Amino acid sequence: MNLIILFENDFVDGLERVRLQGRRLRHVLEVHRAEVGDELHIGMLGGLAGKGRVTCLNNGCLEMDVELNIPPPEALPATLILALPRPKVLRRVLSSVSSMGVKRVVLMNSWRVEKSFWQSPVLKEDNMRRYLIMGLEQARDTVLPEVVLRPLFKPFVEDELPGLVRETFAVVAHPDAPIPCPLGAGRPVTAAIGPEGGFVPYEVEKLVSCGFSAVRLGDRILRVETAIPFLLSKLL
Amino acid sequence: MNLIILFENDFVDGLERVRLQGRRLRHVLEVHRAEVGDELHIGMLGGLAGKGRVTCLNNGCLEMDVELNIPPPEALPATLILALPRPKVLRRVLSSVSSMGVKRVVLMNSWRVEKSFWQSPVLKEDNMRRYLIMGLEQARDTVLPEVVLRPLFKPFVEDELPGLVRETFAVVAHPDAPIPCPLGAGRPVTAAIGPEGGFVPYEVEKLVSCGFSAVRLGDRILRVETAIPFLLSKLL
Repeated sequence: MNLIILFENDFVDGLERVRLQGRRLRHVLEVHRAEVGDELHIGMLGGLAGKGRVTCLNNGCLEMDVELNIPPPEALPATLILALPRPKVLRRVLSSVSSMGVKRVVLMNSWRVEKSFWQSPVLKEDNMRRYLIMGLEQARDTVLPEVVLRPLFKPFVEDELPGLVRETFAVVAHPDAPIPCPLGAGRPVTAAIGPEGGFVPYEVEKLVSCGFSAVRLGDRILRVETAIPFLLSKLL
Repeated sequence: MNLIILFENDFVDGLERVRLQGRRLRHVLEVHRAEVGDELHIGMLGGLAGKGRVTCLNNGCLEMDVELNIPPPEALPATLILALPRPKVLRRVLSSVSSMGVKRVVLMNSWRVEKSFWQSPVLKEDNMRRYLIMGLEQARDTVLPEVVLRPLFKPFVEDELPGLVRETFAVVAHPDAPIPCPLGAGRPVTAAIGPEGGFVPYEVEKLVSCGFSAVRLGDRILRVETAIPFLLSKLL
């Protein structure tokens, strides 16, 4: 936790004093081992970042005087289109993409996505938000990514995706593609990554018909957790 | 498991018939749902890859006729110098770097590496090898990375690192560095990544004195699992 995300109901006495409780308090006590007078990196969810000076501390409560005056880091100019990963992987992926600064993620269906994945409790809004916030805390960001679920492949790809892709450099990572992934896209990116086992040919064709280029990331099949930073880093 | 790694003692009747047992057999039955006549991707540890055709199958045993005639994918021209991550993270990191094709990894000490990490059972050779093999299975590679442990920072950096770095493009990822990480190194890379909380200034100076350039990966602090593919992908 390189930054403590603050919420509106953390504030006491106006906008300059904060009282921490629960998970964040435990982290500050056990990991940061904060003491009165220490300064901690903080950030208002969706707003400015800054420093908080610990003014009062005991086992049940920590108070800080806060100053919020630093804009969060720039967003990554990328939209990520992901075939829904298995729940255990999805948790890590949500934190990871949030830490990288991706601000729009579409979790979509694909032939090789197991139907049961769509029933996972990880997809509940509160749970996704928790993993996304862990990514913000890691990266000292304050702005939550928007994550949308598209459990129907065809209507999403036909009706919505062409609009998302417009004026971006759109690539789908595909092991059989003849073209290697270029270094540096030079403009905003829409990046699509398939499920374990990859997109089926029909799906790659549909993406290509929306304006995606199929590119390869080398001879290796990477796990989605590795493929996402690998692909985004090459392009951006 | 996109490729089944074979070991010498899997072979029966010479070099063309294999009998699978244990974890790999369970995976082939439960995930691949293989049947007699199916072809599976296989590879000899440290050797060639190819196809195996299932000839006999029952709950206790699976036999394949194998043909090994495909060279493994090219190695990534990179040596990775990692401050020892916490054990839970290290497991994933070993699989991930193995899948990316890194063939030399040094796990070294650093001021902010917790001493207890060096006692972790993950560091036992058999355990590391298991996670590395999972990466090979993922990426359809057969060649294990060499992983060496360097629990003393100063002797490693002073006596050994200058030799490793020679004729490579050597970078250390450091959030405070003024230079952004370049796109495409154009030659083999030595990449160093610090612990949670980063290298301390003395350590960065020592690395710079060995020929490393300190580069930044943006305004964000990334977890090591994300930072490794992010950094290697930009450089290679």
